[in-house]
Amino acid sequence: MSSSYRNFRNNVPWLILFLEAVFIGLFYFLFSDGGASKSSISYTAFQDVNHMVIFGFGFFLTFLRRYGFSSIGFNLLIIVLGVQCSVLTEGLLVFLLRRAGEDALKRLTKATLSMTAVVISTGAVLGKTNPVQLILMTVVEILVFQMSRFLNSTFLQVPDNIGMMHVHLFGAYFGLAVSSRFSEPPPRSEKNVSTPKSDLFSMLGTLFLWVFWPSFNSVLAVDNKSKVIYNTYFALAASAVTAFVLSALTTKDGKFQMSHIHSAVLAGGVAVGYAAHRIEYPWIAMILGLLASVITVLGSYCLQRCLNPALKLHDASGVHFTFGLPGVLGALAQVVLLVIKNWTDLSSLGYVVLIHIGAFCLTISVALITGFVTGLILNLRLFKTTPVSKYFDDQFYWEVSF
Amino acid sequence: MSSSYRNFRNNVPWLILFLEAVFIGLFYFLFSDGGASKSSISYTAFQDVNHMVIFGFGFFLTFLRRYGFSSIGFNLLIIVLGVQCSVLTEGLLVFLLRRAGEDALKRLTKATLSMTAVVISTGAVLGKTNPVQLILMTVVEILVFQMSRFLNSTFLQVPDNIGMMHVHLFGAYFGLAVSSRFSEPPPRSEKNVSTPKSDLFSMLGTLFLWVFWPSFNSVLAVDNKSKVIYNTYFALAASAVTAFVLSALTTKDGKFQMSHIHSAVLAGGVAVGYAAHRIEYPWIAMILGLLASVITVLGSYCLQRCLNPALKLHDASGVHFTFGLPGVLGALAQVVLLVIKNWTDLSSLGYVVLIHIGAFCLTISVALITGFVTGLILNLRLFKTTPVSKYFDDQFYWEVSF
Amino acid sequence: MSSSYRNFRNNVPWLILFLEAVFIGLFYFLFSDGGASKSSISYTAFQDVNHMVIFGFGFFLTFLRRYGFSSIGFNLLIIVLGVQCSVLTEGLLVFLLRRAGEDALKRLTKATLSMTAVVISTGAVLGKTNPVQLILMTVVEILVFQMSRFLNSTFLQVPDNIGMMHVHLFGAYFGLAVSSRFSEPPPRSEKNVSTPKSDLFSMLGTLFLWVFWPSFNSVLAVDNKSKVIYNTYFALAASAVTAFVLSALTTKDGKFQMSHIHSAVLAGGVAVGYAAHRIEYPWIAMILGLLASVITVLGSYCLQRCLNPALKLHDASGVHFTFGLPGVLGALAQVVLLVIKNWTDLSSLGYVVLIHIGAFCLTISVALITGFVTGLILNLRLFKTTPVSKYFDDQFYWEVSF
Repeated sequence: MSSSYRNFRNNVPWLILFLEAVFIGLFYFLFSDGGASKSSISYTAFQDVNHMVIFGFGFFLTFLRRYGFSSIGFNLLIIVLGVQCSVLTEGLLVFLLRRAGEDALKRLTKATLSMTAVVISTGAVLGKTNPVQLILMTVVEILVFQMSRFLNSTFLQVPDNIGMMHVHLFGAYFGLAVSSRFSEPPPRSEKNVSTPKSDLFSMLGTLFLWVFWPSFNSVLAVDNKSKVIYNTYFALAASAVTAFVLSALTTKDGKFQMSHIHSAVLAGGVAVGYAAHRIEYPWIAMILGLLASVITVLGSYCLQRCLNPALKLHDASGVHFTFGLPGVLGALAQVVLLVIKNWTDLSSLGYVVLIHIGAFCLTISVALITGFVTGLILNLRLFKTTPVSKYFDDQFYWEVSF
Repeated sequence: MSSSYRNFRNNVPWLILFLEAVFIGLFYFLFSDGGASKSSISYTAFQDVNHMVIFGFGFFLTFLRRYGFSSIGFNLLIIVLGVQCSVLTEGLLVFLLRRAGEDALKRLTKATLSMTAVVISTGAVLGKTNPVQLILMTVVEILVFQMSRFLNSTFLQVPDNIGMMHVHLFGAYFGLAVSSRFSEPPPRSEKNVSTPKSDLFSMLGTLFLWVFWPSFNSVLAVDNKSKVIYNTYFALAASAVTAFVLSALTTKDGKFQMSHIHSAVLAGGVAVGYAAHRIEYPWIAMILGLLASVITVLGSYCLQRCLNPALKLHDASGVHFTFGLPGVLGALAQVVLLVIKNWTDLSSLGYVVLIHIGAFCLTISVALITGFVTGLILNLRLFKTTPVSKYFDDQFYWEVSF
Repeated sequence: MSSSYRNFRNNVPWLILFLEAVFIGLFYFLFSDGGASKSSISYTAFQDVNHMVIFGFGFFLTFLRRYGFSSIGFNLLIIVLGVQCSVLTEGLLVFLLRRAGEDALKRLTKATLSMTAVVISTGAVLGKTNPVQLILMTVVEILVFQMSRFLNSTFLQVPDNIGMMHVHLFGAYFGLAVSSRFSEPPPRSEKNVSTPKSDLFSMLGTLFLWVFWPSFNSVLAVDNKSKVIYNTYFALAASAVTAFVLSALTTKDGKFQMSHIHSAVLAGGVAVGYAAHRIEYPWIAMILGLLASVITVLGSYCLQRCLNPALKLHDASGVHFTFGLPGVLGALAQVVLLVIKNWTDLSSLGYVVLIHIGAFCLTISVALITGFVTGLILNLRLFKTTPVSKYFDDQFYWEVSF
């Protein structure tokens, strides 16, 4: 290890400490009103989302054979930093725009939901970033995502709970854009693989996410909560079944592949997020879940073989097809459902469709552009990018005993 | 691998897809009323049960050293298929009998509870069935269990929440009957064992089940919910203590054996299920838990050494003593408690006792007979039974990298 | 193994069984009033705490490479015994003092909270005690802790929910005092280390505890529940960030160390427990969390290098700095906060401060003295102390297959 790198590393903790001190200072100025009011969100609902982000996504990303500590540890680190940052920007907006503030628990829940974007983005650069890059990315992404949500709600009148569902889309495309600026790992790296045990840990996280996904989709729903839960469950069920079907169809000998199951079982939950409160009958949710799972598995097949090598893109945990494509499908499905329902009233329909497509395009463009810029910044020499030979390796960041 | 088998395997995904398409079609015809009504079951209660079935039972069955992927993966697959199937049969019954339908969340909760029967049955044939056999078994068992519940509630007036508690009994004996038709694995198979790590994963699932068992027993209780919770907790506590006691007594050198703990800690919860709403004092629940644990550990000792070899029965994860015997004890205890309470009023007593014993006998006979027939069907050459040498092996169904 | 030891071991199960029989008998005499009343504690809140103790602490302690079975298994055993014992002593107090009894679920929740003390103490002697010593310690500690809480509430008028927060302090210092009477393991024992996989299991437990800690602190809070949750979350967040900072500062090369993260992420939750309902602004909770994490990591550094060798103390899982020091900090912070708030009204202030300091001193002295005596008793020849060569070894207590 070169001494310049060691110097850099020795500054890392001071940087994090400085950030935390800034946060505490900002909290001092922004939140001096206490937070004791009655909350519109139950503690149980917050807890489910918190559990998903800390525990579910933490273990979801432990599939690499030598990157378990970093997957779980850094996930915790960026979430606690990001949630504080997100609560602060929300508070700053309230302060600057003199809007009515929300109660403490709702603020925290929305901050935790927003962090899903960052967690998904870290999936795209998993194993390739050092902690400083991760933290910088977290702060930038949270700020930009809040801004994107603010633009959506102010100029396009997208309701808050729908705007939040863009979180998967935003996270996936921001992450991909950042990832495009990092060097590709060697094609046959022996560290960039999973073992049966690490797959099992990863499955543990996946099942957590699967079980709690109805909570994720329903936590901000203002009415029809039970319809959201019902539809999300059936979309998840259909996509789990389809994941097995397509995994067997796309692999040699008709065997199942854990990584397909891993990514496709959640696709239905992502896709149904936008429209779950509006879908009348479960069969629609099931078809949506089925299609989401199809584009995830086929996407994983096509992207990994054709698009990614062509674009020299390396998507470490496949967030493009796991969260990106189902998000796109969900956003389109929402528009199609609106058109089917309101096709008699063409005047208002055009306006509504325009707004939803506008929000979709705005979110994706903001994600891609800011992600690309963030990727450029993170690769400045200042940040001591991890050398390719140290990719996917816990030992570079952790004291590991064997 | 023979080419005929490969042909068969290639048809598996189409079969699952066909099933899912049928489900979606039936959902289209049966559930066109939406599901937005207020639910009598809280989302948290449903979530607990969902968590138990997907996560708890999934990891509960991962104790085999090379069968972790299949245990967790196939568990997820059959649950999502089975829940859809169960919701459909319930909807069909409502449609055919023109009964008042239940709200969406209750329907889903009951479907998830019913799936426990299938999950327990798969435990009996763990590692010996291929996915098609598992799926066929799931569909048949769910249909038969619904029928058995329907008979119980229509002809014997067994209340719904008690009828559902037969789920452990039904699952265990159906599974045993199916299992009796499968070839026995060689006695000293090196795959049919656990490792310390796989035992730890399995313990993870067991503790989940242990913690959530009070939710399982109380979710359908109409009143006295808190009494059900209290009694279930103490029954579980007593059976956990007894599990340690008997494990040390039945092994050489007085050491504990994880598999005993694994199966006996839950026995109290199973046994107390039938009568938890009626037990007045916790000490009764504790004695019941203690007895349940005793028959589980002694049952495991006797069955594995005497009965199973005599009957040429191979019970892969010991569902007979883990769920079957405690279920029998619970059903008997319920009758004994009724007799003690109502012995002054002999006229009504006889009727009530007859009904409970009738429901018990009906459930077991239906389970054994239909299980036996299902076992025969599953072993038709059509279904390409897994060869004995490929029992308990993930690699036969999954792409596994080492 | 000597035959005298084998004789001893053969008596273990009878001893446990005898204890359970005594418990059932006492339940028969003390709880004949049923437990069906409406509870002041929601089932969800109880479930969170139950989950933490059984699952969270169970896996929290699995970091040793060969002690996973014992960590999880014995944790379950002592919890179910301890909860019964705790419910009984509470019932006995109610009976003897003719106080109004609490409802069943609240009784159970308080018993589970009290068990945290024992679980923490077992952390201090992890791998060094046999089951009989553990069970004896559990019973003694629960009795003494109940007595200490009773003294606090009767003579010092400490409210119930604050008195319960002494549980971490009590557990840590009782455990340390007990541990001081056990032989030290050899300095470089190859069993007294963790592997990456066991660290991952331990992290699984830690994240569970982290996520549920707000439930722990708020479950007994009579009002301001949402403030307690909010403050606990931010204290935990700040201490998680600080854990990473200090871990990088205190290790060679600026790498992170899992054991630091493991112990310091929870420090904020422990420290904020006493005053969470009284802290007005989140920044105060964050500073408290930051300080708690600092004293944990620095404490781990200093204690393990200086104090412990000097005192010939071996603190197997570092409960002194994980729970003890943050507890001390929290108790002091509570007094400081009181002084700052009420410094205008000096007359009442002195009284309040005296009470809090009194409760703190009382708890620690009782813990240290009774812990020391318990340690002496546990090391009587009667109890066949585990030989040092068999420390940290599952195979001494479990049938382990490899």
